[in-house]
Amino acid sequence: MQAGDLIGFGAAFLTTASFVPQAWLTFRTRDVSGISLGMYSAFTLGVALWLLYGLSLGAWPVVVANAITLALAVSILVMKLRFGRAPSA
Amino acid sequence: MQAGDLIGFGAAFLTTASFVPQAWLTFRTRDVSGISLGMYSAFTLGVALWLLYGLSLGAWPVVVANAITLALAVSILVMKLRFGRAPSA
Repeated sequence: MQAGDLIGFGAAFLTTASFVPQAWLTFRTRDVSGISLGMYSAFTLGVALWLLYGLSLGAWPVVVANAITLALAVSILVMKLRFGRAPSA
Repeated sequence: MQAGDLIGFGAAFLTTASFVPQAWLTFRTRDVSGISLGMYSAFTLGVALWLLYGLSLGAWPVVVANAITLALAVSILVMKLRFGRAPSA
């Protein structure tokens, strides 16, 4: 494994794992008023494209990280839609 | 430009641009109770590592996207710290 791969795996771990506390906070509190629907809509689609990009390059840190991030982003998006009352942004 | 690069730029555009409505919503409402401090701390550090990873590969969609995402993530993290009252998660 090269140094670049190690940096990639560190990056992948952090940006992927970062959505765990957000998903947990949202699940626990159902407090979605400060969470942007626009962000999670665009982010979810974008992460799906990163997954394709990683596959097209054979860049495994990108593939693994984005598959997990996609699952977490979708869960936050679904909670925003289910728990939200007034639309925010 | 190859097809993979086009997918990469689309992914980069969406995941980067997605933080604009979140930063704007947070700036406008100062509603940070539902935003996870843990997420934005880990995410900011992770995006900084993605920037290094992109530089090490010469993968310009990764570099450009993460430089902008880093600025947006830092702005949301700073607003979480400034506008937050009780710690959340």
